[in-house]
This record gives sequence, C-alpha cells and structure tokens, in this order.
Amino acid sequence: MSDILDRLGEVLEQRRHADPDSSYVASLHAKGLNKILEKVGEEATETILAAKDSAADLDENHQAVVAETADLWFHSLVMLSHLGIDHRPVLEELARRFGISGLDEKAARTSE
Amino acid sequence: MSDILDRLGEVLEQRRHADPDSSYVASLHAKGLNKILEKVGEEATETILAAKDSAADLDENHQAVVAETADLWFHSLVMLSHLGIDHRPVLEELARRFGISGLDEKAARTSE
Amino acid sequence: MSDILDRLGEVLEQRRHADPDSSYVASLHAKGLNKILEKVGEEATETILAAKDSAADLDENHQAVVAETADLWFHSLVMLSHLGIDHRPVLEELARRFGISGLDEKAARTSE
Amino acid sequence: MSDILDRLGEVLEQRRHADPDSSYVASLHAKGLNKILEKVGEEATETILAAKDSAADLDENHQAVVAETADLWFHSLVMLSHLGIDHRPVLEELARRFGISGLDEKAARTSE
Repeated sequence: MSDILDRLGEVLEQRRHADPDSSYVASLHAKGLNKILEKVGEEATETILAAKDSAADLDENHQAVVAETADLWFHSLVMLSHLGIDHRPVLEELARRFGISGLDEKAARTSE
Repeated sequence: MSDILDRLGEVLEQRRHADPDSSYVASLHAKGLNKILEKVGEEATETILAAKDSAADLDENHQAVVAETADLWFHSLVMLSHLGIDHRPVLEELARRFGISGLDEKAARTSE
Repeated sequence: MSDILDRLGEVLEQRRHADPDSSYVASLHAKGLNKILEKVGEEATETILAAKDSAADLDENHQAVVAETADLWFHSLVMLSHLGIDHRPVLEELARRFGISGLDEKAARTSE
Repeated sequence: MSDILDRLGEVLEQRRHADPDSSYVASLHAKGLNKILEKVGEEATETILAAKDSAADLDENHQAVVAETADLWFHSLVMLSHLGIDHRPVLEELARRFGISGLDEKAARTSE
C-alpha cells in the first residue's frame, strides 16, 4: 500500500526538471524554497482548520482532513526533493523511534 | 520500505489506549485535539526553520530537516488516529493525484 | 504614534459592512472565519521566512520583515473584528503583563 | 490607549540586555532567533485554535482569543527587537495602507 510514497518520490524526482508551465511540481521548484515552505505552512494551517471542523461536526468532514493532510505531506515531499533529501530517511527515522526496523519488517512479512 | 507507515499506523492504534503516563502517544490523546494540533503547527514551523538553515549552510543540516519532517508526519498521523481516520486514504489521495493507483502499482511490481 | 491602532480599529469596523467587491476587508469577512485564519497562518509563515532571510543577509531585508509583520497584525485585527472582539483588551493584556497600566501611562505623559 | 505599544517597545529594549535567568524576554534573546520564531509560529497556531473554539461556542471564549493574540503580538515585537527593527515602521506601514498618516492623525485629534 504505502509503497505509494516510494512511487511518489520517483514521480517528484522526474517532475523536478519538467517544464514549469506544464507541471505544478516544476513550477514550485522554479519559484524556490520560500514558496515551497509557504505552502508547507499554509497546508499545516488548512489541516488544523479541517481537523477542528471535522471534530465540531462529529461526523464526516473527514474528506477535507484527508485532502489537507495529503497536501501537507505532498508539499513536505517537494521540500525534501528541493533540498536534495530522499524521503526514505524520514520513514527510517519514524521506524527507528517506534522499534520498527527494515529488517524486522521484512521478517514480519516473510512470516505472514 | 514504506510499509513502515502501515506498521506505524498499527502501533499508533495500539498506543492510543495505553497508559498516558508511559506512552507519549497516549498522553497526546489524553490532552485532546487542540494539543495535538498545536504540535502539528509547531512541527511545521520547526520543519520550515530547519529547511532554511539547511539551505543557508549549503551543506548537511539535513539531519535536522529529516528529524523535523518525521515529527511533522508523526503528529499528523496521531491527529488522524485521534479523529478516527485511517492514514491509507491519505496515501490513496496522493496516488490518485499522481496517477499511481494501487492496481498500477501491483502491475508495475509484477513486471519488474 | 500608535493611536494608529485605534484609528485602524475604526476603519476596520467601517469596512466590515462595505461592498466585498470594493473592499478587501469586506471580502475577507464575506469569505468567513476559516479564510481569515488561513491568512493569519500564512502571514505568520511569511513573517518567519522574512526574519530568517533578514538575519542571513546581516543587512537590510528589514523592509520585508516590516511588511510581513504589518500583514500579520492586520489580519489578526480583522480576525478580532470578525469575532466581535475589540483590539483594546489585547493591548490592555500586554500592558497588564508588563506593569504598564493605562493610569501609569497617563501619569507618565503628564509628567513629561 | 495604544501608546501602550510604544511603552512596551521601550520595556522590551531594556529587558533585551537583562539577566536571562530573571527575564523571559532576555531568555528568548539568549536562545536566539529560531527559538523566537518558533514562538511566533506556536502563538499563531494557538490564536487560530482559540478563534475556532470561540466561534464554535458562539459565546465568550473571548478571553482565550485576547490572551493568544497578545502572545502573538508580544512575540512578534520580541522578534523585531532581536533583529534591531523598531515597531513604529510596522504601524506606519499599516497607517500608510489605510490612508491614516501621522499628520492626518494629529490634525484629526486637534479637530476633536
């Protein structure tokens, strides 16, 4: 399922050097780091607002939370790409903190 | 590799109902949505500052960017869990936008 | 000098009920609280980025910091207005914390 | 009333060089720009959350909005001070945008 992130990482790398007129990703890189970081800040605020609205309704504004969180993760992936940082060390850092090593993961999958 | 997110989703679900005194995740849930969203906002700001410092140095403050991005993703996963939202629809949303469907993904892997 | 804030408070109150097509302030109120709060979040991020760039240059990007801080204060004043909150209690709260009471202030001015 | 900002500017300037152990302002300067900017980001998020809660209750969580906005303005004043920027150009920028010049202001006051 979440090999999606690895696939997305590849797509982002390809589009980095695309035509800024035809690719949103390329247009962000062309505008530079500050523009990308403004988007990270914006999407964090929009995620927070969607979460508050979702909790207040007690029902299913969930689609807004899902969409805004996707925007937040997407723009942070573009930020990593702009700085020449692979996204995998971020996942490894998360795994390390939670005692989920890559090896454990493979072992777990084999035994399924 | 990024099945790490699925594993992390499971761990977060287990810890949600753990003792708040022994689990950071449980303590966040006990403090409530506002506290979790404050952390999302904080980590977004810290990610932005780490990215600026990394770009200014032209070298490898990369570890700070990786660690802050991990914190940002982690706290947004806790937010999703607190609202009863699975993280997989977020990945599916990202896949949909980039034309990476689950089926395409499987097909691509088979043909490797 | 800073009676400017009181004057601005009056102007914001007048424009709140203006035509959204001709007044930016009225257009923000028409779009609602979430839009206003998105602007507060955006301007906070832009202030932070301008401050980092200013510090990195060691010189005078100061104009950007001044402009972004003005944007941040402006949109937080619009937020207060949208919620029906006067800006003066905010200043009184700041005065209270710093032992600058309105009375002290008047006394100080008389003795000048 | 809002000469409070001018008074506060003076107090902040004095405390900048105070003992970090006894002054919160001095301790922020000692920790440096990133710490001050983290606080600006944090207080922006807390202002946004207080505004949402205030609007949801339809009543008077107003005290939280006032307190968080005061925190946001306060930390942005500390940021200006840390960068050696006076707060008055920020007010002048706001006045300029709204056609409230210092001269107009004086004239208006004389005619009251």
